[in-house]
Amino acid sequence: MPIRNIAIGNPQEATHPDTLKAGLAEFISTFIFVFAGSGSSIAYNKLTNDGAATPSGLISAAIAHAFALFVAVSVGANISGGHVNPAVTFGAFVGGNITLLRGIVYIIAQLLGSIVASLLLVFATGLSVPAFSLSAGVGVGPALVLEIVLTFGLVYTVYATAVDPKKGNIGIIAPIAIGFIVGANILVGGAFTGASMNPAVSFGPAVVSWSWSNHWIYWAGPLIGGGLAGLIYEVVFISHTHEQLPTTDY
Amino acid sequence: MPIRNIAIGNPQEATHPDTLKAGLAEFISTFIFVFAGSGSSIAYNKLTNDGAATPSGLISAAIAHAFALFVAVSVGANISGGHVNPAVTFGAFVGGNITLLRGIVYIIAQLLGSIVASLLLVFATGLSVPAFSLSAGVGVGPALVLEIVLTFGLVYTVYATAVDPKKGNIGIIAPIAIGFIVGANILVGGAFTGASMNPAVSFGPAVVSWSWSNHWIYWAGPLIGGGLAGLIYEVVFISHTHEQLPTTDY
Amino acid sequence: MPIRNIAIGNPQEATHPDTLKAGLAEFISTFIFVFAGSGSSIAYNKLTNDGAATPSGLISAAIAHAFALFVAVSVGANISGGHVNPAVTFGAFVGGNITLLRGIVYIIAQLLGSIVASLLLVFATGLSVPAFSLSAGVGVGPALVLEIVLTFGLVYTVYATAVDPKKGNIGIIAPIAIGFIVGANILVGGAFTGASMNPAVSFGPAVVSWSWSNHWIYWAGPLIGGGLAGLIYEVVFISHTHEQLPTTDY
Amino acid sequence: MPIRNIAIGNPQEATHPDTLKAGLAEFISTFIFVFAGSGSSIAYNKLTNDGAATPSGLISAAIAHAFALFVAVSVGANISGGHVNPAVTFGAFVGGNITLLRGIVYIIAQLLGSIVASLLLVFATGLSVPAFSLSAGVGVGPALVLEIVLTFGLVYTVYATAVDPKKGNIGIIAPIAIGFIVGANILVGGAFTGASMNPAVSFGPAVVSWSWSNHWIYWAGPLIGGGLAGLIYEVVFISHTHEQLPTTDY
Repeated sequence: MPIRNIAIGNPQEATHPDTLKAGLAEFISTFIFVFAGSGSSIAYNKLTNDGAATPSGLISAAIAHAFALFVAVSVGANISGGHVNPAVTFGAFVGGNITLLRGIVYIIAQLLGSIVASLLLVFATGLSVPAFSLSAGVGVGPALVLEIVLTFGLVYTVYATAVDPKKGNIGIIAPIAIGFIVGANILVGGAFTGASMNPAVSFGPAVVSWSWSNHWIYWAGPLIGGGLAGLIYEVVFISHTHEQLPTTDY
Repeated sequence: MPIRNIAIGNPQEATHPDTLKAGLAEFISTFIFVFAGSGSSIAYNKLTNDGAATPSGLISAAIAHAFALFVAVSVGANISGGHVNPAVTFGAFVGGNITLLRGIVYIIAQLLGSIVASLLLVFATGLSVPAFSLSAGVGVGPALVLEIVLTFGLVYTVYATAVDPKKGNIGIIAPIAIGFIVGANILVGGAFTGASMNPAVSFGPAVVSWSWSNHWIYWAGPLIGGGLAGLIYEVVFISHTHEQLPTTDY
Repeated sequence: MPIRNIAIGNPQEATHPDTLKAGLAEFISTFIFVFAGSGSSIAYNKLTNDGAATPSGLISAAIAHAFALFVAVSVGANISGGHVNPAVTFGAFVGGNITLLRGIVYIIAQLLGSIVASLLLVFATGLSVPAFSLSAGVGVGPALVLEIVLTFGLVYTVYATAVDPKKGNIGIIAPIAIGFIVGANILVGGAFTGASMNPAVSFGPAVVSWSWSNHWIYWAGPLIGGGLAGLIYEVVFISHTHEQLPTTDY
Repeated sequence: MPIRNIAIGNPQEATHPDTLKAGLAEFISTFIFVFAGSGSSIAYNKLTNDGAATPSGLISAAIAHAFALFVAVSVGANISGGHVNPAVTFGAFVGGNITLLRGIVYIIAQLLGSIVASLLLVFATGLSVPAFSLSAGVGVGPALVLEIVLTFGLVYTVYATAVDPKKGNIGIIAPIAIGFIVGANILVGGAFTGASMNPAVSFGPAVVSWSWSNHWIYWAGPLIGGGLAGLIYEVVFISHTHEQLPTTDY
């Protein structure tokens, strides 16, 4: 049976030094990613006096997120696996590649990293950090589907390049592919939902700007899309039962 | 004789689990690629109210396609070889690197992936997916030559970085080179034919928007260019008879 | 104790041929980096008749710096370690990865490389090289914090991908990550402080244009941020005492 | 003595099958590079009705050249070494890394590749291919210095990442670095001289559009800059006498 049993882990694991170090690594990686990603939006707003989105604005957001996510994944890879995203952690949990307790530590660290990055952005720029929201005329249903599909692509990419034992030992493909799929998807979804694909990325700005309109979409979409990708990849493409891995392995 | 016999394969091969898994991988890779590529065009149309193409629009399309194709090739590499393009599959067939039956499975999967991506784009954005077409003033002959030349460069790149036994074992060059040549070529051909270089990429939007004007160019051009590249590379640069490979090997 | 003793080095080291070759490599790498980075700003000013910054201008600066820093790090990697930045050299010194004397040789070489690049830019373009400065309305405190945070991300990246013994032997991740974090951070800080993250990058244009307004921020911010990153990474993530390395090892 | 004797090679070498294959590889690589590079300029002219250069236009040119040169170097690497540029071939000759006869075959192939690409661009687009020229107000002296400095950076990069025996065995750094330095340098020099750094790139459009104004700069600048880089790198950084290599080795 290809799906391994879903593991809870034992309570000591959550306070084990390695888990805490991994949590700190997730905190810093998510901090770096959100500081660049949301920061590029603030810079765009400053340069255009809060003007409407343009293709150049979308390109700027795509490059900032693609480059910074490559970095965030790379710097965390050897410590925590470089998830930087609750949807990735959830997808890894669904596929049996991380325990529940360790996963919770990761997600808390990611959310805190995003909040601290948002706070520092507000202080350092003197401007507000924009929360994710639906563009005018975009319905809730299509927006949810869009976040599901975009995150499916992202977590499928994580599985194919970082989790699959057939991936080979070229540790450079995973972080590039993960950064690039987010960059490409922002050029699609950025004009409709902001293309978050990552609840932590949406949560920090929502807390700091206290804007919760349709915020649930930015949790439900990525978690459904990421969970589906993890499930499908494990069932179809990873056919043998393999050992429990503590983290995805870039 | 450098050209190996063109192989049909045996009928069981088409329904072998490995072939079906490879087909599913081609379906998902093409889905991811078309969703990002055609999706970025829809986003551009939304942001500019269907404005005329600009250099920024071409840059956006080039980055979306380059990044997403790198991902699509990388995630499929270890399962199907990551063709993501009937012209690549045809070029591999002409050079004797895939059997006829397996090639047909690949191409059907690629076409279906493109159609499903186009349908989901229409639902998630509420907008129409633009079919490939010739820009005003572009003649059929020059357009055909352009698609031939652009696809020649793409499939030549596939052969040099992924098929050639001399390519070495650095599995990262092939997906980067394949993504980048498509990105660069879009900055040329995007203003004239849309720079498809890929019948699947053109087919899905054509089906969903039911626009077939000059559609044959987007099959003839890539297949001629890809076939030529496969033939020339095999004859000139791969001088020894090597074993039949089931797929190109990234 | 994880922090190694801070080493001064012996006087002969500063004039040893290997140290001088490393200094020359730092000079040329910084020259290449500043010529492309500051040169792209001059080109932007020419094309826009010294117009205000726009998102396209920020994208241009981000790509120029990201690409050129990847190159500057790569070409210096096997000779000097490819620091190209006094903040990186200082972070390496704080973490015990370079001696004081060798570090001083590096920093002098970096400053000279930046000055010579700025002089040649003025001659070859006939225009002035723009000094780094705070955008209108940006306070000194927030600007300092911004340079600290941006450089923290950069030097943390250097440590995680180039210094950490767990980094593995994939020598390609470090230069890409270092180039990309600078590119991403410019898309944030470029609109506020110019996002220098590098005292050498600011020093050359300041000397040649003799503009010293708030120049201290471009030293204090990067050195504080880089020092913090080196300290934290060494204490938390590099737990065993390892041998003194002459340079960071890409 | 670090500089090896400059070698002429024997007459049979020029007609040896390996030399001819290498020449064909240089022809195709240069063809791909020029088709994308000059083609992106033609597309820009079409989209803007021959408008003045803008930052977006420079970004488009930088990405097209960076991506296509990465590809051109990668696809030629295992056959000819992937020079794609007479200045690189000349720099390799000056440093003793290619014989005179083989170098001449390479340069002729590069020039022919550029001419054929330019001819096909004119046919496929119906527009003229723009020759390289100095922007208004740019003097001959500064233009020459600019091409010298930009090409020095390029050929220094080739030496450090592809020729230096210390470069290690990561065959991916060289083509990325070579593509990226050209992309970054175009963001500087594109606004002044076009940033050719490559006599073949300038020669094809000059022949097809028969525009020879200041054309000598596009030969003298790259050859001086490339020769200087080869000489300096060999003398300073490659200290031992090594074996004659038939080509640079990516």
